[in-house]
Amino acid sequence: MPEALPPGSTIGILGGGQLGRMLGLAAARLGLKTHIYSDEPGAPAFDVSAFSTVRSFADEAALGAFASSVGVVTCEFENVPARALEIAGGKAPVHPPVKSFAVAQDRLDEKKFIRGLGIAVAGYADVHDEESLRDALVIVGLPGILKTRRFGYDGKGQVLVRTDREAVAAWHEFQRQPALLERLVAFEREISVLVVRGQDGNLKFYDPVENVHQGGILAISRVPAHITADCAVEARQIAGMIAEALGHVGVLCVEMFQREGDTPRLLVNEIAPRVHNSGHWTIDACLVSQFENHVRAIAGWPLGDTGRHSDAVMTNLIGADINRWRELAGEEGVAVHLYGKAEARPGRKMGHITRISPRSS
Amino acid sequence: MPEALPPGSTIGILGGGQLGRMLGLAAARLGLKTHIYSDEPGAPAFDVSAFSTVRSFADEAALGAFASSVGVVTCEFENVPARALEIAGGKAPVHPPVKSFAVAQDRLDEKKFIRGLGIAVAGYADVHDEESLRDALVIVGLPGILKTRRFGYDGKGQVLVRTDREAVAAWHEFQRQPALLERLVAFEREISVLVVRGQDGNLKFYDPVENVHQGGILAISRVPAHITADCAVEARQIAGMIAEALGHVGVLCVEMFQREGDTPRLLVNEIAPRVHNSGHWTIDACLVSQFENHVRAIAGWPLGDTGRHSDAVMTNLIGADINRWRELAGEEGVAVHLYGKAEARPGRKMGHITRISPRSS
Repeated sequence: MPEALPPGSTIGILGGGQLGRMLGLAAARLGLKTHIYSDEPGAPAFDVSAFSTVRSFADEAALGAFASSVGVVTCEFENVPARALEIAGGKAPVHPPVKSFAVAQDRLDEKKFIRGLGIAVAGYADVHDEESLRDALVIVGLPGILKTRRFGYDGKGQVLVRTDREAVAAWHEFQRQPALLERLVAFEREISVLVVRGQDGNLKFYDPVENVHQGGILAISRVPAHITADCAVEARQIAGMIAEALGHVGVLCVEMFQREGDTPRLLVNEIAPRVHNSGHWTIDACLVSQFENHVRAIAGWPLGDTGRHSDAVMTNLIGADINRWRELAGEEGVAVHLYGKAEARPGRKMGHITRISPRSS
Repeated sequence: MPEALPPGSTIGILGGGQLGRMLGLAAARLGLKTHIYSDEPGAPAFDVSAFSTVRSFADEAALGAFASSVGVVTCEFENVPARALEIAGGKAPVHPPVKSFAVAQDRLDEKKFIRGLGIAVAGYADVHDEESLRDALVIVGLPGILKTRRFGYDGKGQVLVRTDREAVAAWHEFQRQPALLERLVAFEREISVLVVRGQDGNLKFYDPVENVHQGGILAISRVPAHITADCAVEARQIAGMIAEALGHVGVLCVEMFQREGDTPRLLVNEIAPRVHNSGHWTIDACLVSQFENHVRAIAGWPLGDTGRHSDAVMTNLIGADINRWRELAGEEGVAVHLYGKAEARPGRKMGHITRISPRSS
């Protein structure tokens, strides 16, 4: 068993968004303090943290001082600079491992890694110059999605292309950044599996979630997903294989397309090496949430109960949706979670609600 | 409907203990900030609050500045000085009302108030001098409990007396403070009802809880309580009557003795004008906890769902019990809550655990 950080210790979190805020709330339940490091003054997580640093992620002295002051460092966003992780790693244990971030930050490496484990992904090809783009169009076929290799989230850095001409135009719009062309696959539903892996290699899984996106942003997550028990087992196996192959510690989210009739029935779309929006329902429908289990894992604690006591439907409050807070707060069976963000810009995740109902299956 | 404090507003909390900490965590879920005012540096609630003041409760300038900086003031402990509430009330709305604290702070006034509502309490008599003590022994009879009128909690300021001589000795031990002698009643079980009352007078109730004390300190709370549906309705009615008569806003806990065979079957033991240890189970077994509902009430929000999705047994971790944190954290079906207190003194509440199981009734 790993050495566990005792109650009273401090968890360092790189990033100060809503995920950092909810990690901080979970850490506090366990008697742990948090130190938030963010380059954004007034970021949501600062409101609930014992310690805070507002500095650039390029400020190596500040990063070093931060990491020296905590028992473990974790991240609440995916695109944390590799150099920041390296600096932090010189002063404190960093979980999840650098490998999890490296793989998830590059959509091409991610596909290669997953396919390398014998797990199915949609057909894809590397795009790095005009010639490779022409080849990709032949190999992958259309319709497809052209994606930049790096800095993608919430539908950013990706565009649907239906003709060769659209593909070329899209790549030029991306300023010819390294990219990949991915086959657009038909699927029945998108599901995700949240797995948490402890420092001792122990794995626990939350029930698979069914997700609905709108405009590239997650809108709704629903549990149980409408999949067979068989398919749920397979989805868990895939998530577990990826977590183990990464040597991941903490929560990992694996998004998959589920197809009916086709083989294989599950294709991995992408992974996120962190707590994930599609796991927010676990706060209200599980005894131990994804946030608490991430904290437990990185702190070397035993993993907590991932069982689901209720069915749940999580709906994001995006932009002006937040203005309905009062009406939503008055609904029976609804839990309201707001992130304390001052400005409700379009497309900005301002909060979420979870509707729970007695467990159906 | 009252004006609600919008997300982003700040709640002021007098007191920085575990109740303030859990109120702060609940406020953060709703996008509200907290400002903790405590005379104890390093108090548990500071770790999760956006703003903090460490000053004496007698520092009127500091209290005024604190109250001026927040949208509403509430208290997380019962024996808050009346003058502090008065100062705060000059600068911001204070909920619960002064009356709730005044009644709960004086055990004699509390009994009179409750009896005045036609609600049964154990027989009692005022003790303020030797003569009234002699009278009380005749009126009330023995065995009894001699209690100081003020500053009682967790079994402090009360002693069991079985003979006249013990009663006299106990009163001298209390340095002849104003006191009351209360009849020791036989009962089947102690229950408590948590009621929350909104600014609009709306009332919501959590299911009655069955409590077990050890050494005067709450050890275990269990829901559902082993009482009939009839008795649960009656318990709720009593709690609702008290909340209304006080014009209470926020959570109120009413502790009762339940007797079998005797009439009336419910006697009110005491009230607490705040979130209460016997309501900690609501964090894990209800969608909206006592803490969140207290915040909603004082902030003028609609009250949240008090329904219970699971059965629960809450066990306090007192003093050295905290040392079992690692073992407890590894148990299935157990949620661990630690308060971030540095020193595990005997009798000190360090945390609690909640065991949940599927709802039985």
